[in-house]
Amino acid sequence: MEYELLPMISSPQDLKTLTEAQHEKLAAEIREALCQIVETKPAHFASNLGVVELCIALHLVFDFSKDRLIWDTGHQIYPHKMVTGRFPQFRTIRDRNGLMGFPNPNESPYDLFMTGHAGASVSTVLGMKTADDLLFDDDRKAVAVLGDGALPSGVVFEAFNNAAGLNKDLLVILNDNKMGICPRVGGLAEYLDKARAAPFYNGLKRDVAWVLNKVPMVGGSTKKGLSNVKDALKTLLHGGMLFEQMGFRYVGPVDGHDLKSLRKHLEMVKDIKGPTLLHVFTDKGKGFQPACEDPVKFHSPSPFDRSEEGFAIPRSKGGKNAAYTDVASETIYQQMAKDDKVVVLTAAMCAGNNLGKIRDEFPERFFDTGICEAHAVAFAAGMAKSGMKPIVDIYSTFLQRSFDHIFQEVALQNLPVVFCMDRAGLCGPDGPTHHGVFDNTYMRAFPNITVMAPGDSQDLEAMIPFATNHDGPISLRFPKANAESVIREEEFSPIELGKSEVIRWGSEVMIVSFGALLPECLKAVEKLQKDGIDIGVINARFLRPLDTEVILEAVKNCELVVTVEENTLCGGFGSVVLEAANEAGLSTQNVCRLGIPDRFVEHGDRNELLAELGLNAVGFIRTIRDRLSNRQVKESGVGAVE
Amino acid sequence: MEYELLPMISSPQDLKTLTEAQHEKLAAEIREALCQIVETKPAHFASNLGVVELCIALHLVFDFSKDRLIWDTGHQIYPHKMVTGRFPQFRTIRDRNGLMGFPNPNESPYDLFMTGHAGASVSTVLGMKTADDLLFDDDRKAVAVLGDGALPSGVVFEAFNNAAGLNKDLLVILNDNKMGICPRVGGLAEYLDKARAAPFYNGLKRDVAWVLNKVPMVGGSTKKGLSNVKDALKTLLHGGMLFEQMGFRYVGPVDGHDLKSLRKHLEMVKDIKGPTLLHVFTDKGKGFQPACEDPVKFHSPSPFDRSEEGFAIPRSKGGKNAAYTDVASETIYQQMAKDDKVVVLTAAMCAGNNLGKIRDEFPERFFDTGICEAHAVAFAAGMAKSGMKPIVDIYSTFLQRSFDHIFQEVALQNLPVVFCMDRAGLCGPDGPTHHGVFDNTYMRAFPNITVMAPGDSQDLEAMIPFATNHDGPISLRFPKANAESVIREEEFSPIELGKSEVIRWGSEVMIVSFGALLPECLKAVEKLQKDGIDIGVINARFLRPLDTEVILEAVKNCELVVTVEENTLCGGFGSVVLEAANEAGLSTQNVCRLGIPDRFVEHGDRNELLAELGLNAVGFIRTIRDRLSNRQVKESGVGAVE
Repeated sequence: MEYELLPMISSPQDLKTLTEAQHEKLAAEIREALCQIVETKPAHFASNLGVVELCIALHLVFDFSKDRLIWDTGHQIYPHKMVTGRFPQFRTIRDRNGLMGFPNPNESPYDLFMTGHAGASVSTVLGMKTADDLLFDDDRKAVAVLGDGALPSGVVFEAFNNAAGLNKDLLVILNDNKMGICPRVGGLAEYLDKARAAPFYNGLKRDVAWVLNKVPMVGGSTKKGLSNVKDALKTLLHGGMLFEQMGFRYVGPVDGHDLKSLRKHLEMVKDIKGPTLLHVFTDKGKGFQPACEDPVKFHSPSPFDRSEEGFAIPRSKGGKNAAYTDVASETIYQQMAKDDKVVVLTAAMCAGNNLGKIRDEFPERFFDTGICEAHAVAFAAGMAKSGMKPIVDIYSTFLQRSFDHIFQEVALQNLPVVFCMDRAGLCGPDGPTHHGVFDNTYMRAFPNITVMAPGDSQDLEAMIPFATNHDGPISLRFPKANAESVIREEEFSPIELGKSEVIRWGSEVMIVSFGALLPECLKAVEKLQKDGIDIGVINARFLRPLDTEVILEAVKNCELVVTVEENTLCGGFGSVVLEAANEAGLSTQNVCRLGIPDRFVEHGDRNELLAELGLNAVGFIRTIRDRLSNRQVKESGVGAVE
Repeated sequence: MEYELLPMISSPQDLKTLTEAQHEKLAAEIREALCQIVETKPAHFASNLGVVELCIALHLVFDFSKDRLIWDTGHQIYPHKMVTGRFPQFRTIRDRNGLMGFPNPNESPYDLFMTGHAGASVSTVLGMKTADDLLFDDDRKAVAVLGDGALPSGVVFEAFNNAAGLNKDLLVILNDNKMGICPRVGGLAEYLDKARAAPFYNGLKRDVAWVLNKVPMVGGSTKKGLSNVKDALKTLLHGGMLFEQMGFRYVGPVDGHDLKSLRKHLEMVKDIKGPTLLHVFTDKGKGFQPACEDPVKFHSPSPFDRSEEGFAIPRSKGGKNAAYTDVASETIYQQMAKDDKVVVLTAAMCAGNNLGKIRDEFPERFFDTGICEAHAVAFAAGMAKSGMKPIVDIYSTFLQRSFDHIFQEVALQNLPVVFCMDRAGLCGPDGPTHHGVFDNTYMRAFPNITVMAPGDSQDLEAMIPFATNHDGPISLRFPKANAESVIREEEFSPIELGKSEVIRWGSEVMIVSFGALLPECLKAVEKLQKDGIDIGVINARFLRPLDTEVILEAVKNCELVVTVEENTLCGGFGSVVLEAANEAGLSTQNVCRLGIPDRFVEHGDRNELLAELGLNAVGFIRTIRDRLSNRQVKESGVGAVE
């Protein structure tokens, strides 16, 4: 397909000059551009196909050079990027130094917040609207587009409650495609299903109309009574009762692929006073049949080709290695088969964490709470209190939502909940909202929690049963990466509380690695040994309790000790080593801490990002050589002066 | 009043042997015991007066030796403690080594979770119920008593959503007293007010009945239509529509002071299948007229006497010093008067943070979100995005709920939100759920946030305007304590980004104090100087950016550097000093870090707790003398060997 219209759209103003037919053509071009992207790289796909018309309609009805718009979550931002002047760079999306796959205020004034974690849009839009009303007198509109997957997030209800109390002119568009990344779950899901099930409401509507028709019309107070009943019944005739009860006006549902109807409804709600919810039905995957049929698979698919008939032809992948995710889910599955007290909880990450087999084979012991991380952790704590062994299987970055429940419901009660953190470390093309580089710091803030990280695939397999048999809260973390296995000179040493594993001892230099950068550390060690440096590596395994015996031995005796972690250096594993050495009265001038610096790391290929930060074998070698040569310079310098 | 019944109750089983009249007498005795407590010490009062009958009724109908019960929040636990065998120790409540003022599993098997932070009870009860159903076959019941103040917390809705999805037999009792600590706010508040406003519903009920009476009764499908309408109308006839829409069965409202009716309703809902909400109206302060009239004041009042006529006579307080809270609120008020971009947000801490004057005088720039800390922070971020200067005025411990929004909405977007953390450090008799001893660690986890702490009252007054004029996220913290002022030898040095204040330089020993323990440090310095030790103190002011120039000068040159903070030593201020010294290549063997150890600190008088942890002048002197004498021993030891 030739792009005729997209190249002409340099700002949303340009949309307003097009005809209705051209808008339809534009929608088709946007869909084509989306397909072309996923032919070249993994990217968010089905959700973007679903919001093409909604995006066009919003930009036609509002003026977001001053009005406010948040896409929540931001992975449905692609069409918005195309119509706000970024079509020329669109092919760079998710690449290092290319467009971000989420809204990015540094790219465009049309992007207001990076929204990688779901649900905060109603709050931020309410905040902007409230401030705009105080600061400006041009009646700026405020719109949040909220996926139904994000709807159950607690912060959404907190924001609804506040918005109704403040009675702000706020428009929440519920983009209802029946899905989060996975099919939605819980009471709200059933509620929305009912709202969608037109026959129920239509039937009821008929019945109510019939009842009202039978009522004889008389005057006076009776009439008023009837009108009250009619008003009350109105809320029964559509799916919006829940929102109306929360203090929102409910409008809809609207077909989210009917541009004309969308524009009409948006024009209508634009000037409604008070908080309003417009319920829009969209099809996740609209316009590309395979994605409609399997929106989970096509949420963020691996690159594929399109056949002439419109099928998706997967690229041949060659021998794909198992990812840490797969090792974790298989090990958890095995553990569940052995121990019927083990239960697994996730928060809409069933697909991401590869938990389908567990869900299908142990449905009674598998719980998907939807995007409700806070609840998931407190729920797990309750299960642990009763004697189960819950594993909370959530990405490192999303588990941040549970911070306070990790504190009060788990650590303070000292309950045996296992936090299994996937996507720990740099998460690649998803960028800074998805990097899980703070958990070493936040998990260790609270007492009682044992903090582990496997150094490789074998470690991970051993740590999961260890964790489920540990009497107290315990966490482990691994990256979104292929599972590697380290070649051990001696037998694999079983996991023991607070014990590290010395992979090789070096009298000159020791690397102390916490987590999955261990194989890179070993590569560096092999190279440096060839250079004649007596260097070894410790697989720390535990951050708390730290193996002070072994690690401080290295600090005491080696010329250089390098700590390695894929976590912020602020309060992370390296700091734990410094703290322990300090308590033991040791000098730490020979300790060099490597990890994520104190700044947000952008998106890009994980290996590229690690390389840039010096967190791979090449980086380790460079750092160690620099430190050793500095030492030599210093030593000879000192000699010269003396 | 003589206690006749309370001393006989050694477990809830004993309640079941009493007559109805005795239950009423017991209620009166419990209220008397509550009054006697608050005559001697500050304690949670009005909320406990309100739940006396509910507590008795619950223990009569259920058997919580196996059934599950959570009070949320736990400050309404006092009557429960009295009837579960703890009346003999009741007078020790909130004292060091006495009963905790919140549920405490270490005290009694009838206390399941420490619930100082609101809203997690539905999740934990759901977790216990789910696990109990898997583990036991004795159909254990599960009950959460949820205050209406806790209801808007996001985690409650997340749990409702999950409970409805799982369709568990779960009873949530909404203890509706129209209050959190302060009057409730937001859309839910209005909703509950409506539910309470019987006339509206009664009127509507009459109208509906009238309409239905007018409908001629005919057979067949019409009848079925009518029945559908009737069912639908039912939800309109009570206040429970919102909960019904969420997938709960709604029962109520019930008068929470009518023991007979309460028992009847509890018996009725006890065996209902699926999640059920029982709406109970209680009067906060019931039984003590002054508390009913001013439940905010009597939420947790200062000790008072009772007059014969039933009035509360405040004790004469003598010259009460202003607390840090008062200094903060007055300074914020002044700043709001000067700068109309400054807005203040709190999460139901209007009374606790002394924000009444601000609320009354700047109603357009004051926002109380209710117990919705997550939303409050995201809402503040939205306001900052539009150009306002929001101050989020929330206790350190409760701000933990916002951790992920501090990350995504504030730090990642680099927006100028001021976090003003009250109750930072040990919070005294409220205990471990309320101590704010993790914020140094969690605030520094994320990039971009400037982290400050005032050393005294004068610092706090200067830091608030500094913070509101800072272009980026910034936090400051202060304890629940009297505001002290340090006597400076030189003029007060204004707050400057990343600059500490040298109060006095010492060539031998330097204390580096971050936060409000500064006056204690100075006391220690004065004492030790008299002993001939050349000792000084730095008021660090900033944790990030750290004043490395001055602080590392001390690390480089002094024999001993002691860092002092009222925060966990895990990743706190002391670690920041270690990290900075490590990066500068300095030895830190002379650095001694004092702060909160890696364990949960119990409740008790703040000064007692600080003394126990060595965090006062006496403790600092002891530590410094020990370290210096160790040094001398070592030195002479080394000398002897050589």
